[in-house]
Amino acid sequence: MSPLLPTAPYRGTRDFLPAEMSVRQQVFNHLYETVERYGYGRYDGPVLESAEIYEAKSGQEIANQQLYSLTDRGGRRIALRPEMTPSAARMIAHNAGSLQFPVRWYSHVNCHRYERPQRGRTREHWQLNVDIFGSDSPNCEIEIFELIHDLMGSLGADRDMWMLRVGDRAILNSILRDVVRIPHDAHQQTMALIDRWEKTPADELREQAAQFGVDRAMFDLLETTLGAGADILPDLPEEVRETSTLARVMKSEAQDLFVFDPFIVRGLQYYTSTVFEVFDRSPENNRSLFGGGRYNDLAGLFTKQQIPGIGFGMGDVTLHDFLDTHNLLPQPRSEVDVTVIPVDDDLIPASREIARLLRHAGIRTSTTLEPRKLGKELARADRSGARYAVIAGRDEWQRQAVVLRDLHDNAQHEMPLTDLAPHLTRHLTA
Amino acid sequence: MSPLLPTAPYRGTRDFLPAEMSVRQQVFNHLYETVERYGYGRYDGPVLESAEIYEAKSGQEIANQQLYSLTDRGGRRIALRPEMTPSAARMIAHNAGSLQFPVRWYSHVNCHRYERPQRGRTREHWQLNVDIFGSDSPNCEIEIFELIHDLMGSLGADRDMWMLRVGDRAILNSILRDVVRIPHDAHQQTMALIDRWEKTPADELREQAAQFGVDRAMFDLLETTLGAGADILPDLPEEVRETSTLARVMKSEAQDLFVFDPFIVRGLQYYTSTVFEVFDRSPENNRSLFGGGRYNDLAGLFTKQQIPGIGFGMGDVTLHDFLDTHNLLPQPRSEVDVTVIPVDDDLIPASREIARLLRHAGIRTSTTLEPRKLGKELARADRSGARYAVIAGRDEWQRQAVVLRDLHDNAQHEMPLTDLAPHLTRHLTA
Repeated sequence: MSPLLPTAPYRGTRDFLPAEMSVRQQVFNHLYETVERYGYGRYDGPVLESAEIYEAKSGQEIANQQLYSLTDRGGRRIALRPEMTPSAARMIAHNAGSLQFPVRWYSHVNCHRYERPQRGRTREHWQLNVDIFGSDSPNCEIEIFELIHDLMGSLGADRDMWMLRVGDRAILNSILRDVVRIPHDAHQQTMALIDRWEKTPADELREQAAQFGVDRAMFDLLETTLGAGADILPDLPEEVRETSTLARVMKSEAQDLFVFDPFIVRGLQYYTSTVFEVFDRSPENNRSLFGGGRYNDLAGLFTKQQIPGIGFGMGDVTLHDFLDTHNLLPQPRSEVDVTVIPVDDDLIPASREIARLLRHAGIRTSTTLEPRKLGKELARADRSGARYAVIAGRDEWQRQAVVLRDLHDNAQHEMPLTDLAPHLTRHLTA
Repeated sequence: MSPLLPTAPYRGTRDFLPAEMSVRQQVFNHLYETVERYGYGRYDGPVLESAEIYEAKSGQEIANQQLYSLTDRGGRRIALRPEMTPSAARMIAHNAGSLQFPVRWYSHVNCHRYERPQRGRTREHWQLNVDIFGSDSPNCEIEIFELIHDLMGSLGADRDMWMLRVGDRAILNSILRDVVRIPHDAHQQTMALIDRWEKTPADELREQAAQFGVDRAMFDLLETTLGAGADILPDLPEEVRETSTLARVMKSEAQDLFVFDPFIVRGLQYYTSTVFEVFDRSPENNRSLFGGGRYNDLAGLFTKQQIPGIGFGMGDVTLHDFLDTHNLLPQPRSEVDVTVIPVDDDLIPASREIARLLRHAGIRTSTTLEPRKLGKELARADRSGARYAVIAGRDEWQRQAVVLRDLHDNAQHEMPLTDLAPHLTRHLTA
C-alpha cells in the first residue's frame, strides 16, 4: 500500500470550507453590488497568460522572482497571472474597436505570486479589480474615490477605521525638481526611496540618499517638504497646480474624501500620475489595505492607440484582516433553513416529497440520507444551523400532516402539509 | 520601440467581456440557487495542487498528457488542477474530524487541461462540482438525480431536450461475468471497449474485442445484452438485483428520472458503482453534457478512513453549447439602469449629486465622465442599455429639478429631485 499523501493545501494557498467561503462571498457580494451600482460591468479572463506581458511592465520583482511560469508542450512561455491589469489591458486593446470609451469594468479573480507566505500575504489571493479605461478626466478620480468610500461603507467600516492617502507623480516630480531641486538623474532612485520611506529607519534612508547624490541638506528639505502634505501645493509652479489631475480633484467636492500625501508612490511601473492607497487606521493592523493609480498608456504593449485608465486592486487577504481587526466579519450562513426528518425508513419518500414542496417555495431544505434515531437527527439539524425541523411521522403522514419543530425553542406542533410552505415562508423571511 | 504583443487570449482559454460574463453569471446563478436549495454549501480551493494527487488517481491520460505542471523554486512538483474532485477529497480528508457526514458540497472553479481546443473543449473551463461525501445510501443517487432535473429545469430546459443515462459498474460486472461469461482477465479491456462503443464503428469494436479474447459469438451476445437495457435485469443473480445501488434506486419514485443504460461506463478510475451522463437530445448537438458517478473510497489517497461519495462536474463550455442549441441563453444584462447627463461642465457636480441619490436607492446609475453634446450622450446611454436618462440642466437645477427621459419612447418631462428616486424605483422594478 502506498503511503498517504499530505492533506494540507499547497504552501501559501488556502482551502475555503463552506463556512469560510460563505464569509468570503458575503463580503464580496457587498462589493459587487456597490460597484455595479456605479455601472461597472464584471469581466473575467484566463489564469494563464503569455509570460512576456508581465516581463514588460509589471516590474522586475514580479517578473524575475514572483512569477509562476512554465513552457507548454507547444513551446509557449506562459505564466499564472500575478495581477489582473495586464490581462485587462490586453482585452481592452483586443476589443478597442467595439467598446464605448470610457468603459467601467471590474473583475474578481485569483492571482498567483511566488512569495514567502506571511500575515496578509499568500501565494494565491482573490483580488477585486476596478478600472475606468479610456478617460484622463479628473472626474474619474472623483468617481473612484467616492466608490472606495461606498465600498468601505458597504462592509460596515466607518471613516475613522481607515483613510485614503493620495499622491500624484506629476506633483511629486515638481516637488523633486522645483522645490527640493534634486538632480534629474537621481529622481528615479529618490522615488524608490520615498516608496520605502515608512518602512525604513531615517538613518538608513539618509545613507542611501547620499549614495545617489542627495546630500544631507537636500534630504532634510525633502523630508520637510513631503511632510508638509497639501501645504506645499502653493509653492509649486502655477502650471502644476492648474494641470495636475490631483490638484484639480482637490478643488472639487471630492476634496473631503482623501488626504493628499506625497509619500504615496507605489511601485508598479505603469502608474503615471495619481496613486493612492487605503490604510487601516487601527494601531494593531496599521498597514496598506489596497491601492491603485492612473496609467496614461497601459495598453501600449498591445496597441498604438493611447488608452489612459485608473483603477485599483483589492485583495481578499488584507481585507479579511482589516474586517477581522474591526470586528466586521459577517457570520457564516447556515447550511439550510429546514431539515426534513423521517421517523423510519419507509417515510423517506414522504420526506423527499415534503422537501420538494418546500424547495419549490424557495426554502433551502435538506432531507435525511441515512436515517438514524430522531434525537440524533435533531441534534444534527441544529448543528447545521437549520431554523426548523419537519418530522415525517407515520400517523401524521396518513393525515397528510407533519410535525413542525422550531429549533430555537424546541416547540413543536402538528401542521397540515398544505399549510407548511406558506407558514415557513412567512416565518423565515420575517 | 518594441513590437506590439498579441492581444488574443492564450490558446484554448477565453476572455469574458462584460456581456459574455453576464450570460455566464446568469446561467450559473440559477445553478447556485438550485443546489443551495438542496442544502449544498459552496467551497473553494487552490488552482495549484501537488502534482502527485492527479498522477495517482485521475487516470493516465490526464496525468501524462493533459496536466499543466511545474516545479516551484522550493522544488515542489505542482500542477494546475485539471478537475476538482481530488482537491475536494483532500479537503474532506483534512477536515474529516470536524465534519458532520454526510456532507453536501458544491464548488464552481476553473480547471485546466492541455488539450487540442475544439467545439465543446477548451484548455480552461469553469466547472460546477456537486458532491455528497460520507454516505453509500441509494438515497444519495435519488437526490442527485432529482437535483439534476431541477438544475436543468432552472435553465429552462424541458425533459425532451436532454436525458439522464445511468449505468452501474456492479451491474455491468455481473453482465460480463454472469450473462455474457467473458473471462475475468478481459473485463477491464471490455469495459474500456464499452466506454468507446458509441464513437467507434462496429467492425472495429469486434476486431478489438477479438484481440483480447472476446470472440464473435461472445461479442454479439454482449451487444444484444447491453442493448436490452433494463430488460436484462431479471436475468441477473438475485444478489445483484437486491444489492446493487442502482437496482435499489430503480425501485424508488426516482425511477422516472433516468434511463438505465449499461453502455455508460465513464473513464475516470475512481468511479466504483453508479455512473451517469446527461445527454443533449438535439440532433445538432447530440453529445454528453456532463456526468458523474459514485466512488466508494476516493479519499483513500489521503486517509485510511473510507469515505464514499457521489457527485458530478458540469462544465461551462458544453453547457453553453447546449443552451445555445436550444435557444435558452439569457440576454446580457444592461450596464446600468440610469445615466445622468449634465448639459455642461459646470453641472458635473450636480450630476454626481443626482447619481448619489439614485445609487443610495439601489438604482444602478452612471454619470458622464467626459461631457460631450447631449445628443451623443443620449445615444451612448441608449447603447449601454440604460432605461432612463436624467438630464441635469441649468434652469432645472436651480429649481432643484431634473429632466427625466424614457429611453424606450424618448418621452421626457421635468421632475422635482425629491420625486426622482421613488419614481424610478417604482418604474424599474415594475
